[in-house]
Amino acid sequence: MEVYHLYSGGKDSSLAAWILERMGYDVKLVTISFGLLDNWRHAKETAERLGFEHQVLYLPRDTLKKAAEMCIQDGHPNNAIQFIHERALEAVAKIADRISDGTRRDDRVPFLDLPKTRSLEDRFSVAYIRPLLGLGYKTIRELTEMLFIVKIRESEELQKADYEVELRYLLREKGIDPLGIFPRRHYQSRVLGWKTEETR
Amino acid sequence: MEVYHLYSGGKDSSLAAWILERMGYDVKLVTISFGLLDNWRHAKETAERLGFEHQVLYLPRDTLKKAAEMCIQDGHPNNAIQFIHERALEAVAKIADRISDGTRRDDRVPFLDLPKTRSLEDRFSVAYIRPLLGLGYKTIRELTEMLFIVKIRESEELQKADYEVELRYLLREKGIDPLGIFPRRHYQSRVLGWKTEETR
Repeated sequence: MEVYHLYSGGKDSSLAAWILERMGYDVKLVTISFGLLDNWRHAKETAERLGFEHQVLYLPRDTLKKAAEMCIQDGHPNNAIQFIHERALEAVAKIADRISDGTRRDDRVPFLDLPKTRSLEDRFSVAYIRPLLGLGYKTIRELTEMLFIVKIRESEELQKADYEVELRYLLREKGIDPLGIFPRRHYQSRVLGWKTEETR
Repeated sequence: MEVYHLYSGGKDSSLAAWILERMGYDVKLVTISFGLLDNWRHAKETAERLGFEHQVLYLPRDTLKKAAEMCIQDGHPNNAIQFIHERALEAVAKIADRISDGTRRDDRVPFLDLPKTRSLEDRFSVAYIRPLLGLGYKTIRELTEMLFIVKIRESEELQKADYEVELRYLLREKGIDPLGIFPRRHYQSRVLGWKTEETR
């Protein structure tokens, strides 16, 4: 049972990957890139440390451009992040029978509601699995602390492999300060490896 | 990490229990009874076959009476089942730090929406875990077929341990035909055991 799992190297997508593996899935990690930066390397590095197979899936540059325009028009990144995530799921759905991601119960974006979820599954004949959807922040924190060595920094500082990094970069290229669009205190996490007996 | 898991012996709550165990939880199965029938024995039997710890938790008879009145007033069992499930979760939340159930993404009842979920967690300082919430029917079917020997019958025929059985019984005692209230073709499942190499 192969599943293609959207992966950023963060703790949510790492925890979801771990659950999928525990459920018996053959987990293939997929990191999205627009080819603008090579920040997908951070996800690859974490994937390797955790022992998962990893690949990069390139989305059209136009998708990122459209997302940047949405950011500028809205003054916040929510719709843009949602837009990219939906295109990412569709791109993975084209190459797989089972797809998954690390979206959580308490997430607002990116998040597919029930009609969008069913539409995705029907349009691509795919099963969409979200291992964290039934888990609250307490449960996710407890499992994450048990499993991973995690580094937490503000978004702007941390080198990681989510959509935000290339989106911020493109905005800066257009002469727009991402700090006026992205919330200031948006902490991001990156997983550095499994906890062992010594580091627990 | 102990979790108290609401358990009927059906395939959904069995699958959820299996996922919880795979995630490293110490799973305690709990079957609700109103003390009217001993149909909880079917859940206990399945729990033993699967190798899980099991206990019965009795809810007040008044809760079942109120649910029966809701059935009669509504002409369908949805609100009554939802009402019982919420009381069941609250009763388990009183004795545990982590609670769970087998509710699915595609379920309408019983189902706690996000505000109700957070209210339950806050009122009882509990983590509410739903391993099947991020899984669609395809995924659940695939995993269930891989793991369990399942018996499927119409609700009225199958001896099992969900709320419906005592609710139907109480309605019949009041001279009301449950077939006028419960949907006719409501198939229910009961897990008989793990699949082995021979039965797979």
